[in-house]
Parts: sequence; C-alpha cells; structure tokens
Amino acid sequence: MIVEIIAVGTELLLGQIGNTNATHIASRLTESGLDCTHRQVVGDNLNRLSDVIRTALGRSDAVILTGGLGPTRDDLTREAISDATGRPLLRSEAYVAALRERYETMGSEMPLSNLQQADYPDGAEMLPNPRGSAPGLVLDHDGVLVFALPGVPPEMELLLEDHVLPRLADVAGGNGVLLSRVLHTWGLGESRVGELLDDRFEESVNPSIAFLASAGETKVRLTAKAEDEEAALRLIEPLEGEVRDRLGSAVFATDGESIESVLHRLLRERGWTLGTAESLTGGSVGARITSVAGASDVFRGAIVAYHTDVKERLLSVGDLSDGVVSEKTALAMARGAIVALGVDVAVSLTGEAGPTSQEQPPGTVVMAVVTPEEGRSRTFRFLGDRERVRAFATSRALHLCRLAVSGVWWDGQ
Amino acid sequence: MIVEIIAVGTELLLGQIGNTNATHIASRLTESGLDCTHRQVVGDNLNRLSDVIRTALGRSDAVILTGGLGPTRDDLTREAISDATGRPLLRSEAYVAALRERYETMGSEMPLSNLQQADYPDGAEMLPNPRGSAPGLVLDHDGVLVFALPGVPPEMELLLEDHVLPRLADVAGGNGVLLSRVLHTWGLGESRVGELLDDRFEESVNPSIAFLASAGETKVRLTAKAEDEEAALRLIEPLEGEVRDRLGSAVFATDGESIESVLHRLLRERGWTLGTAESLTGGSVGARITSVAGASDVFRGAIVAYHTDVKERLLSVGDLSDGVVSEKTALAMARGAIVALGVDVAVSLTGEAGPTSQEQPPGTVVMAVVTPEEGRSRTFRFLGDRERVRAFATSRALHLCRLAVSGVWWDGQ
Repeated sequence: MIVEIIAVGTELLLGQIGNTNATHIASRLTESGLDCTHRQVVGDNLNRLSDVIRTALGRSDAVILTGGLGPTRDDLTREAISDATGRPLLRSEAYVAALRERYETMGSEMPLSNLQQADYPDGAEMLPNPRGSAPGLVLDHDGVLVFALPGVPPEMELLLEDHVLPRLADVAGGNGVLLSRVLHTWGLGESRVGELLDDRFEESVNPSIAFLASAGETKVRLTAKAEDEEAALRLIEPLEGEVRDRLGSAVFATDGESIESVLHRLLRERGWTLGTAESLTGGSVGARITSVAGASDVFRGAIVAYHTDVKERLLSVGDLSDGVVSEKTALAMARGAIVALGVDVAVSLTGEAGPTSQEQPPGTVVMAVVTPEEGRSRTFRFLGDRERVRAFATSRALHLCRLAVSGVWWDGQ
Repeated sequence: MIVEIIAVGTELLLGQIGNTNATHIASRLTESGLDCTHRQVVGDNLNRLSDVIRTALGRSDAVILTGGLGPTRDDLTREAISDATGRPLLRSEAYVAALRERYETMGSEMPLSNLQQADYPDGAEMLPNPRGSAPGLVLDHDGVLVFALPGVPPEMELLLEDHVLPRLADVAGGNGVLLSRVLHTWGLGESRVGELLDDRFEESVNPSIAFLASAGETKVRLTAKAEDEEAALRLIEPLEGEVRDRLGSAVFATDGESIESVLHRLLRERGWTLGTAESLTGGSVGARITSVAGASDVFRGAIVAYHTDVKERLLSVGDLSDGVVSEKTALAMARGAIVALGVDVAVSLTGEAGPTSQEQPPGTVVMAVVTPEEGRSRTFRFLGDRERVRAFATSRALHLCRLAVSGVWWDGQ
C-alpha cells in the first residue's frame, strides 16, 4: 500500500511556514506500518494542483491532501480533485444547512463564500470536522483512495486519526486490521537497539518489527495483521513483552506519549516536585517541562545561572575549584536549586555550547540530578553546532531526570 | 524564473525529521525575488528519484536537489541526475586526490566508498564544500540549471548562499543583477504594513515591493534589477529610506538578522546586562536569548517562577492583591529579577498558557520591562492553544525588550 502526501499552500512554497503537516502525516503513516514514497508541495494554483493530483493518482494507492479547503478563492483543493478525476462538483444541501446552523450558533450570518465548503466531487464522502467549518473528503477513484484534509494542524490531525488511518489500515489489512504499537527508547542508539533485537527482526513476519531513529530517540514499531483488533493485540503482546525485557529501562514511552508527560506522571506517582538549574541551555529544559498542560502539579521553577556570578548568588555554588564545567559544580547547582526553589528533585546542566569555549572543548556538558534518595552527575560530549549541542543536552537532561525519578541510576558519582 | 526544490531522503518520508532544508531554501528564494512553484520529497530509490528529476526538468527553469550526496550506497543523487539527463558519470581525479588529502590530514585512510563523491554527470561543475566531504554540483542541462547540494543543513546553507543564489540571480537578472533587501518588522501586522505602503506597492516596479508574513513578523522585500550591484543598491536606497520612515520603529532588522542578535547589539551599545523573570513560558525567553553565540556578554540569567511561592521567594513579589496575572505583579517580578540577578534590564512574563486557567481567560499574558531609565507593563491576549500562546508570548517579550532598550516605549503604565 503506497500512500502519497500532497501539502497545498503558497505559504509553504514561500518558506513562510514549515511543512509540519506533511512530517506529522508521514510519521503517523510509518507508525501505522504504511509506506509513503512521494511527498509534494504545491501552491494555490488550480492547474498545478490538478497536475500534481493526476501524477499521484498514477503512481500511488492512496493520496492524502492537506490544505486548500477553506472558504476563500485561494482554496482550490475541491475543484482540483474534481478536475483531476473528471468528477463534477456537487453541493451538499445537508451541509449547507449545517454550516448555516453553525454560524447561527455563533450569532453571526454565514458569509456566502463559505458555501463552497459544502461542495464535493461526485462520489466523495464528507468527513465531519468538529474543530472547524471545512469538512474533509474521501473518494474512491478507480481504486485509489483520495483524502482531502484541512490545513489547520489540529483539524488535520483529528481527521487523520479518526478517518484516514483507520480506512487505510482497513484496506491494507485486507479483510482484517493492521495494528501497530510503538515503543520509544532513549540512550541505546539505533544500532545497539538493532543488535539487541537482531534475531527477532529476522524471524518476525507477523507481527513485524521496524526501527525508526530521530534526534537521539529510537522507536521500535511492532505491526500485526489479524482479523480483528483483539487478535492483532494477541499477536503483538508476547513480542512486546520480549522487546521490553531486552531493552529494559531504555523504553520510556508507548505510542504517542512524550518524555515530558512521562516525567510528569512519574513525579506525580512519587509525590515529588521538580526544579532545574540551567546554564548553557538558557531555560530550555524548563521550557520543555512546561510545554505540557498540568506541569504546575510537579514543576515549581528554574534558575538559569548563565553567568558564574549567578551560580554563586542564587545557587550558593561556593567551591569552583574544579571549574565551572565540572561534576562538582553540576552537583552543587542541583543541590542549590533544591534549596532555592524548595523542590524535592533538581536537574542541573553546565557546559560549553560553543562555538567558542572557556574551560572545556565546545560540546562538553555536565549534568546532575539530585532526588531525596540520591544525587549523581555525568559528563557528556555532544557533537555539532551550538543549536544541536543545546537541543541534545536538553533532551538528555529530561531523560536523566526520568531515570533518576524511576530509581534507575547510571554508574559513577 | 521558476525554481523547483527536491529533497532526497527516506528519513523525510518516514517523518523522522522535518524538511527544514526545503523550508530554508524556499524562504531564501522568496527573499531573493525568485519563484518556487513545486517542491517534492522522494526517498533513496534510484527509479523514483530519476522520475522526479525528469518531471522537474520538464516544468521548471532551475532545480535544487538537497541530500543523497554522501558516501553510502543509499546516496543516489549523482546517479539519478545522470540517469534523468542521459549524461554519463565521470570521475574527477583532482577531487579523488583532494579527498585523499582530506583523510590524510585527519590521520585516517579514505574508505573506498567515498570515491563516488568524486563522480559528476558529464558537463557538470563541482561546487567545493568546505564544511564536508561531499561537493555540490551544478549542471546546465538544455537550459535548465540543476543544482545538487548536500543534505546536512550547514553544508547546504553555505553552498546555497555562495553558489546557488548568486547564479540564479545572475540568470534571472539577464545581463544584470537581481538584488534584494529584506526589512523585518514586528507589531504592525501584514495588513497594516500593506496599508502604509499601499501607494508604493502600486507604483514600484523596479525596485519591486513584496510582503511576507510569518509568526507575528512581517517582512518587506525590496528587489531591484540593474546592470551591477552598485546600480541596484542606488535603486533600492531611496525606497528603503521611505519604507523605514513610514514603518518607524516597527522595523527591527535587515536581511538575515534575528531579533536575538539585534537585542544583544542594542544592549552592548548601551552597556546594559539583561535577565528575565518568567512564568508561563517556563524559560523559553532565556532559551531564545542564549540561542545566539556571544549571549554571555549581555545575558546573566533567568528566574523561572512557575509556582507563585517561587515568585515570592526569589523575586520578592510581596503584594499579590491584583492577582498573579496582573501588571502590578509583572512589574514586581521584573524589579525582583534586577535585584536577584544583579542586572540592569529585566523582562518579565506572567500569564495563563491554557488550556485551563485560574485567574484570567487562557491566552492572557502580562509582560513588563524595567530598564535603568523606566519600567512599564502591558497586557496581551493571545489566541490559540498552549503551544501558540507560549511561542507568541516569547517572541513578543523579545520585541518589547528591544523597544525598551532602544528607548521607544509603548503607551500606558
């Protein structure tokens, strides 16, 4: 089953926004065991959009369009599908009534331009969009499934999960279902994860195993095909158990869960509060921890001691005899944050982000975590430029923190 | 002049990484006054890659490929260009020698697989890549310019600036040059910027004016075509002066400069140090300020007082009678940060990121800036989800800070 993604919008071609929709759809397809071989971006231009859809219809089994379903003259996806498939546009009177009602509820009159959102190519089915006024579309055109989704990310994501992925899994599964479980791992690296599961990778066909690496994280995807969901789960579970045994504490989350949410959950379970003491990251560890709603249950604050003087002043780091970038200083920073912020757990970072450095080579970062049970530090050397060093250090700090709160520590002081 | 971008790499199709290269190239093309109508992503597969290049050759004046120039068997861009254009691959003995020397300098032997990096389609020119082992390529094939750039962002960006954009501007300028100046504005919004320059937009052909909006920022691009750079600058300068007059302090940067760099420069000029007092942003203002090298000249640190208790404890906020999310609290936080961090200027933020809220509707954010000259606060209401509220609040704080350090204040206390 080959799926193609087409993102529609001149703002993408101008580079005004990143194509995060295509990346999101691609990653969800991969996690669902579906193949994507082509991705296109095209502007708000009827001829070019129709051409691009025609090309996709000729080489893929399913096409997912995102964008161009709004109410303005620039929104041409419906028309282009009609053009590329030769199916005339019809107007859904039921949807016109629903749109009018939506506007009445908001106490305003419906602009006439919204009427085009009730149009659909002959043979298409409308996908209700509870988050906006533009419905999605699905059309089976000569055996190729064509989906049109809104371009607004939360609307697109909802329709993708509720309609697109289930239908694609249905088709790909034949008469059965295709079910995937994704285990997120951190710290082993893709090649080590591959080695640990090598024999399973060779012999497992259903469920199959695949590895996906991204920015320090390696995901292990288990995909099963079976007559129903329950049967698919029965196939996945023994293999999942074995994978978890082999990878141990490197597995930190399942399916869509983030490291931030995992950390919040673990802290809540232990009844501990958290704070950070940062230097080279400038506050990005705190920013990541608070990116998820509900952070206030566990996170109290951060002290960014970028200047050495602030490390002394607010974190009471007295003894700098080993240098600012040292395990002694990192531990003192974490202990200082526990007192200053009144928290149970603190994670600290001190290091050289580059491009120039003072004490240690650029990319050297020392971190410490102190909990009510124990405190340890660790030294890393990250490769790459300033941005990469800071990003990797930030993610690593969240993962060290997760391990420490779980009571799983690393070796060394 | 129609330019097409092709990003090569299975990791893009799997959604493991975002296609930031394509977004970067698209935005630089737009800023240089060049049009891009199509963008494609394709995996490491020779047939599909050749097909995609053929399609691009048939509809565009120039094609920029990025990725697939590495030393492994998966790196197929050279071969695919050869395949799509019918030009045989030749091997540059000069480049083989250069590669060997590169490895000798590093004290290691060159892996044989690296030899393919010395291959080029007949008629192509190699573009030296000082940041890596893969050279870029440029080929004029029947009047279509084909560029192949590495996929590693800093390598791609360097070759784009040094070779691709100048050559494209040459061709687009006919016998002359095409030169653009980009003025970055903040705070007026695209429609207001458009209104203020409406008459100029209508009557200016050379130089032309264009507007590009992204995440709160509106860029104004002035593009001139002339026989040489000096003549193009003479055309741009009077219009640039007029645009600056009309837009006033909303213009904060020129060409590629970032708000972070501008803020550092202004602080350095005044000899002031900076600190932040954050709440809902969790440290992201500090993270942004320290994202640029040299931050340590001006930035001393941040206090993230996520919990109210930390606001009292570390920022000495005593009087919460107006509420935590109030102008009084924001000013007290900034003043507290000045004392606690020992800085000259502080910017503070307190607000409700959502989705739930305690005192004010979600999206309400109060900021204050205090300098040695003055201190003022301001209340905002940002729309959107938690992520958007935090991102917009972070950018707005940097811009308020820039205005205050420039001595340009907003109305109100």
